[in-house]
Amino acid sequence: MAEFGLDPRITASSHGVASLALSELRLQDDGRFPWAVLIPRRAGAVELADLARGEQQVLLDEIDAAGRWVRALGEAWALPVEKLNIANLGNVTPQLHWHVVGRRSADPCWPGPVWGQGTADPLSPAQVEAARGAWATLAR
Amino acid sequence: MAEFGLDPRITASSHGVASLALSELRLQDDGRFPWAVLIPRRAGAVELADLARGEQQVLLDEIDAAGRWVRALGEAWALPVEKLNIANLGNVTPQLHWHVVGRRSADPCWPGPVWGQGTADPLSPAQVEAARGAWATLAR
Repeated sequence: MAEFGLDPRITASSHGVASLALSELRLQDDGRFPWAVLIPRRAGAVELADLARGEQQVLLDEIDAAGRWVRALGEAWALPVEKLNIANLGNVTPQLHWHVVGRRSADPCWPGPVWGQGTADPLSPAQVEAARGAWATLAR
Repeated sequence: MAEFGLDPRITASSHGVASLALSELRLQDDGRFPWAVLIPRRAGAVELADLARGEQQVLLDEIDAAGRWVRALGEAWALPVEKLNIANLGNVTPQLHWHVVGRRSADPCWPGPVWGQGTADPLSPAQVEAARGAWATLAR
Protein backbone atom coordinates (compact mmCIF):
# COMPACT_ATOMS: atom_id res chain seq x y z
CA MET A 1 0.00 0.00 0.00
CA ALA A 2 1.30 3.44 -0.91
CA GLU A 3 1.99 5.75 2.00
CA PHE A 4 0.22 9.09 2.31
CA GLY A 5 2.27 12.19 1.59
CA LEU A 6 1.25 15.75 0.78
CA ASP A 7 1.55 16.85 -2.84
CA PRO A 8 4.48 19.31 -3.12
CA ARG A 9 2.17 21.81 -4.86
CA ILE A 10 0.05 21.87 -1.70
CA THR A 11 3.00 22.27 0.69
CA ALA A 12 4.42 25.03 -1.54
CA SER A 13 1.22 27.11 -1.44
CA SER A 14 0.08 26.62 2.18
CA HIS A 15 1.23 26.35 5.80
CA GLY A 16 0.66 23.36 8.09
CA VAL A 17 -1.73 24.06 10.96
CA ALA A 18 -3.00 20.81 12.49
CA SER A 19 -3.49 17.08 11.95
CA LEU A 20 -7.20 16.43 12.43
CA ALA A 21 -8.84 13.02 12.79
CA LEU A 22 -8.93 12.48 9.02
CA SER A 23 -7.29 15.46 7.34
CA GLU A 24 -4.31 17.72 7.40
CA LEU A 25 -5.51 21.28 8.00
CA ARG A 26 -3.47 23.94 6.20
CA LEU A 27 -3.63 27.70 5.70
CA GLN A 28 -3.40 28.91 2.10
CA ASP A 29 -0.52 31.37 1.74
CA ASP A 30 -2.70 34.21 0.47
CA GLY A 31 -3.67 37.17 2.61
CA ARG A 32 -6.38 38.24 0.14
CA PHE A 33 -8.76 35.67 1.68
CA PRO A 34 -8.89 33.65 4.90
CA TRP A 35 -8.56 30.24 3.25
CA ALA A 36 -8.28 26.76 4.73
CA VAL A 37 -7.28 23.60 2.86
CA LEU A 38 -8.16 20.11 4.14
CA ILE A 39 -6.31 17.08 2.78
CA PRO A 40 -7.62 13.68 3.94
CA ARG A 41 -4.70 11.39 4.79
CA ARG A 42 -5.70 8.67 2.34
CA ALA A 43 -3.01 7.68 -0.14
CA GLY A 44 -4.25 7.82 -3.71
CA ALA A 45 -7.61 9.48 -2.92
CA VAL A 46 -8.68 11.85 -5.72
CA GLU A 47 -12.48 12.00 -5.58
CA LEU A 48 -14.80 12.42 -2.60
CA ALA A 49 -16.14 8.97 -3.50
CA ASP A 50 -12.67 7.53 -2.83
CA LEU A 51 -13.37 8.02 0.89
CA ALA A 52 -15.51 5.52 2.78
CA ARG A 53 -18.90 6.84 3.88
CA GLY A 54 -17.75 7.19 7.50
CA GLU A 55 -14.65 9.09 6.39
CA GLN A 56 -16.81 11.45 4.34
CA GLN A 57 -18.83 12.21 7.47
CA VAL A 58 -15.66 12.98 9.42
CA LEU A 59 -14.60 15.25 6.56
CA LEU A 60 -17.92 17.12 6.86
CA ASP A 61 -17.19 17.83 10.51
CA GLU A 62 -13.70 19.01 9.61
CA ILE A 63 -15.08 21.29 6.88
CA ASP A 64 -17.48 22.70 9.46
CA ALA A 65 -14.65 23.38 11.92
CA ALA A 66 -12.49 24.86 9.16
CA GLY A 67 -15.35 27.20 8.29
CA ARG A 68 -15.51 28.48 11.87
CA TRP A 69 -11.75 29.04 11.84
CA VAL A 70 -11.90 30.88 8.49
CA ARG A 71 -14.57 33.17 9.93
CA ALA A 72 -12.38 33.83 12.98
CA LEU A 73 -9.42 34.65 10.71
CA GLY A 74 -11.63 36.98 8.69
CA GLU A 75 -12.42 38.89 11.89
CA ALA A 76 -8.72 38.97 12.90
CA TRP A 77 -7.62 40.20 9.46
CA ALA A 78 -10.44 42.77 9.18
CA LEU A 79 -11.80 40.83 6.20
CA PRO A 80 -15.10 39.68 7.75
CA VAL A 81 -16.52 36.69 5.88
CA GLU A 82 -19.89 37.11 4.16
CA LYS A 83 -19.99 33.72 2.42
CA LEU A 84 -17.96 30.53 2.58
CA ASN A 85 -16.89 28.91 -0.68
CA ILE A 86 -16.39 25.17 -0.13
CA ALA A 87 -14.98 23.15 -3.00
CA ASN A 88 -13.08 20.15 -4.24
CA LEU A 89 -11.73 20.90 -7.72
CA GLY A 90 -8.44 19.03 -8.18
CA ASN A 91 -8.02 19.87 -11.86
CA VAL A 92 -4.43 21.00 -11.27
CA THR A 93 -3.52 18.98 -8.16
CA PRO A 94 -5.38 15.66 -8.17
CA GLN A 95 -4.62 14.73 -4.54
CA LEU A 96 -8.01 15.01 -2.81
CA HIS A 97 -8.21 18.37 -1.06
CA TRP A 98 -11.04 20.67 -0.03
CA HIS A 99 -10.96 24.44 -0.03
CA VAL A 100 -12.85 26.50 2.55
CA VAL A 101 -12.51 30.12 1.48
CA GLY A 102 -13.93 33.15 3.26
CA ARG A 103 -15.41 35.56 0.71
CA ARG A 104 -16.70 39.11 0.95
CA SER A 105 -18.32 41.37 -1.59
CA ALA A 106 -15.29 43.71 -1.37
CA ASP A 107 -12.70 41.00 -2.13
CA PRO A 108 -10.68 41.21 -5.38
CA CYS A 109 -12.41 38.23 -7.09
CA TRP A 110 -16.03 38.73 -5.97
CA PRO A 111 -18.41 37.33 -7.13
CA GLY A 112 -16.25 35.03 -9.25
CA PRO A 113 -14.31 32.06 -7.89
CA VAL A 114 -10.81 32.59 -6.44
CA TRP A 115 -8.97 29.70 -8.07
CA GLY A 116 -6.43 30.74 -10.68
CA GLN A 117 -7.35 34.41 -10.30
CA GLY A 118 -4.81 37.14 -9.67
CA THR A 119 -1.67 36.71 -7.58
CA ALA A 120 -1.47 35.37 -4.04
CA ASP A 121 -0.44 37.86 -1.36
CA PRO A 122 1.92 35.84 0.90
CA LEU A 123 1.28 35.85 4.65
CA SER A 124 3.84 37.11 7.15
CA PRO A 125 5.29 34.61 9.66
CA ALA A 126 3.44 36.52 12.39
CA GLN A 127 0.11 36.09 10.54
CA VAL A 128 0.70 32.36 10.18
CA GLU A 129 1.55 32.01 13.88
CA ALA A 130 -1.53 33.98 14.87
CA ALA A 131 -3.69 31.80 12.62
CA ARG A 132 -2.28 28.66 14.26
CA GLY A 133 -3.08 30.21 17.62
CA ALA A 134 -6.63 30.94 16.51
CA TRP A 135 -7.06 27.29 15.49
CA ALA A 136 -5.68 26.11 18.84
CA THR A 137 -8.17 28.35 20.66
CA LEU A 138 -11.07 27.10 18.54
CA ALA A 139 -10.08 23.43 18.88
CA ARG A 140 -9.62 23.63 22.66
CA MET B 1 -41.80 29.73 9.06
CA ALA B 2 -40.92 30.66 5.51
CA GLU B 3 -41.76 28.08 2.86
CA PHE B 4 -39.06 26.62 0.64
CA GLY B 5 -39.01 27.76 -2.97
CA LEU B 6 -36.32 27.64 -5.63
CA ASP B 7 -34.50 30.86 -6.42
CA PRO B 8 -35.62 32.08 -9.89
CA ARG B 9 -31.96 32.32 -10.97
CA ILE B 10 -31.65 28.59 -10.37
CA THR B 11 -34.84 27.67 -12.22
CA ALA B 12 -33.81 29.93 -15.13
CA SER B 13 -30.44 28.21 -15.60
CA SER B 14 -31.33 24.55 -14.98
CA HIS B 15 -33.94 21.83 -15.56
CA GLY B 16 -35.77 19.90 -12.83
CA VAL B 17 -34.85 16.23 -12.66
CA ALA B 18 -35.92 14.71 -9.33
CA SER B 19 -36.89 15.43 -5.74
CA LEU B 20 -34.45 13.49 -3.57
CA ALA B 21 -34.78 12.89 0.18
CA LEU B 22 -33.30 16.28 1.03
CA SER B 23 -32.57 18.12 -2.20
CA GLU B 24 -33.97 19.09 -5.55
CA LEU B 25 -31.75 17.59 -8.26
CA ARG B 26 -31.43 19.75 -11.37
CA LEU B 27 -29.48 19.67 -14.62
CA GLN B 28 -27.55 22.84 -15.48
CA ASP B 29 -28.62 24.10 -18.92
CA ASP B 30 -25.13 23.95 -20.39
CA GLY B 31 -24.02 21.25 -22.80
CA ARG B 32 -20.35 22.17 -22.35
CA PHE B 33 -20.25 20.10 -19.15
CA PRO B 34 -22.43 17.40 -17.56
CA TRP B 35 -23.43 19.44 -14.52
CA ALA B 36 -25.79 18.66 -11.65
CA VAL B 37 -27.12 21.14 -9.10
CA LEU B 38 -28.49 20.04 -5.71
CA ILE B 39 -30.65 22.42 -3.69
CA PRO B 40 -31.59 21.25 -0.18
CA ARG B 41 -35.26 22.01 0.51
CA ARG B 42 -34.58 24.12 3.60
CA ALA B 43 -36.03 27.60 3.53
CA GLY B 44 -33.42 30.24 4.26
CA ALA B 45 -30.40 27.89 4.18
CA VAL B 46 -27.32 29.64 2.77
CA GLU B 47 -24.31 27.88 4.31
CA LEU B 48 -23.61 24.15 4.68
CA ALA B 49 -23.64 24.80 8.44
CA ASP B 50 -27.30 25.87 8.14
CA LEU B 51 -28.16 22.20 7.68
CA ALA B 52 -28.38 19.89 10.67
CA ARG B 53 -25.61 17.28 10.89
CA GLY B 54 -27.94 14.49 9.76
CA GLU B 55 -29.08 16.59 6.80
CA GLN B 56 -25.46 17.21 5.81
CA GLN B 57 -24.91 13.46 5.75
CA VAL B 58 -27.94 12.97 3.49
CA LEU B 59 -26.56 15.71 1.26
CA LEU B 60 -23.25 13.78 1.00
CA ASP B 61 -25.13 10.74 -0.27
CA GLU B 62 -26.99 12.91 -2.78
CA ILE B 63 -23.71 14.48 -3.97
CA ASP B 64 -22.33 10.97 -4.42
CA ALA B 65 -25.35 9.90 -6.48
CA ALA B 66 -25.23 13.11 -8.51
CA GLY B 67 -21.58 12.37 -9.27
CA ARG B 68 -22.45 8.95 -10.65
CA TRP B 69 -25.18 10.53 -12.79
CA VAL B 70 -22.82 13.24 -14.08
CA ARG B 71 -20.33 10.53 -15.08
CA ALA B 72 -23.12 8.64 -16.90
CA LEU B 73 -24.12 11.85 -18.73
CA GLY B 74 -20.48 12.41 -19.67
CA GLU B 75 -20.44 8.99 -21.34
CA ALA B 76 -23.75 9.66 -23.10
CA TRP B 77 -22.59 13.07 -24.37
CA ALA B 78 -19.16 11.78 -25.44
CA LEU B 79 -17.61 14.10 -22.81
CA PRO B 80 -16.16 11.44 -20.49
CA VAL B 81 -15.52 12.85 -17.02
CA GLU B 82 -11.93 12.90 -15.78
CA LYS B 83 -12.55 14.83 -12.54
CA LEU B 84 -15.58 15.96 -10.59
CA ASN B 85 -15.70 19.53 -9.32
CA ILE B 86 -17.94 19.71 -6.24
CA ALA B 87 -18.67 23.13 -4.80
CA ASN B 88 -20.91 25.43 -2.85
CA LEU B 89 -20.14 29.03 -3.81
CA GLY B 90 -23.33 31.07 -3.52
CA ASN B 91 -21.69 34.45 -4.13
CA VAL B 92 -24.29 35.32 -6.78
CA THR B 93 -27.25 33.18 -5.64
CA PRO B 94 -27.19 32.80 -1.85
CA GLN B 95 -29.80 30.00 -1.66
CA LEU B 96 -27.75 26.95 -0.59
CA HIS B 97 -26.92 24.88 -3.66
CA TRP B 98 -24.15 22.47 -4.57
CA HIS B 99 -22.57 22.05 -7.98
CA VAL B 100 -21.34 18.67 -9.22
CA VAL B 101 -19.57 19.33 -12.52
CA GLY B 102 -17.93 16.75 -14.77
CA ARG B 103 -14.62 18.09 -16.04
CA ARG B 104 -12.16 16.90 -18.68
CA SER B 105 -8.80 18.19 -19.77
CA ALA B 106 -10.29 19.01 -23.19
CA ASP B 107 -13.15 21.13 -21.85
CA PRO B 108 -13.25 24.87 -22.62
CA CYS B 109 -12.43 26.03 -19.06
CA TRP B 110 -9.84 23.41 -18.01
CA PRO B 111 -8.04 23.61 -15.62
CA GLY B 112 -9.81 26.72 -14.33
CA PRO B 113 -13.22 26.69 -12.64
CA VAL B 114 -16.39 26.83 -14.78
CA TRP B 115 -18.36 29.45 -12.85
CA GLY B 116 -18.80 32.74 -14.67
CA GLN B 117 -16.65 31.54 -17.59
CA GLY B 118 -17.76 31.74 -21.21
CA THR B 119 -21.32 31.28 -22.39
CA ALA B 120 -23.62 28.38 -21.59
CA ASP B 121 -24.54 26.11 -24.50
CA PRO B 122 -28.26 25.35 -23.92
CA LEU B 123 -29.40 21.73 -23.98
CA SER B 124 -31.97 20.44 -26.46
CA PRO B 125 -35.28 19.12 -25.07
CA ALA B 126 -34.18 15.63 -26.20
CA GLN B 127 -30.94 15.92 -24.21
CA VAL B 128 -32.85 16.96 -21.10
CA GLU B 129 -35.29 14.05 -21.49
CA ALA B 130 -32.43 11.59 -21.97
CA ALA B 131 -30.69 12.95 -18.87
CA ARG B 132 -33.87 12.46 -16.84
CA GLY B 133 -34.04 8.91 -18.17
CA ALA B 134 -30.43 8.31 -17.16
CA TRP B 135 -31.24 9.48 -13.61
CA ALA B 136 -34.28 7.21 -13.46
CA THR B 137 -32.15 4.25 -14.53
CA LEU B 138 -29.47 5.06 -11.95
CA ALA B 139 -31.99 5.61 -9.14
CA ARG B 140 -33.93 2.40 -9.87
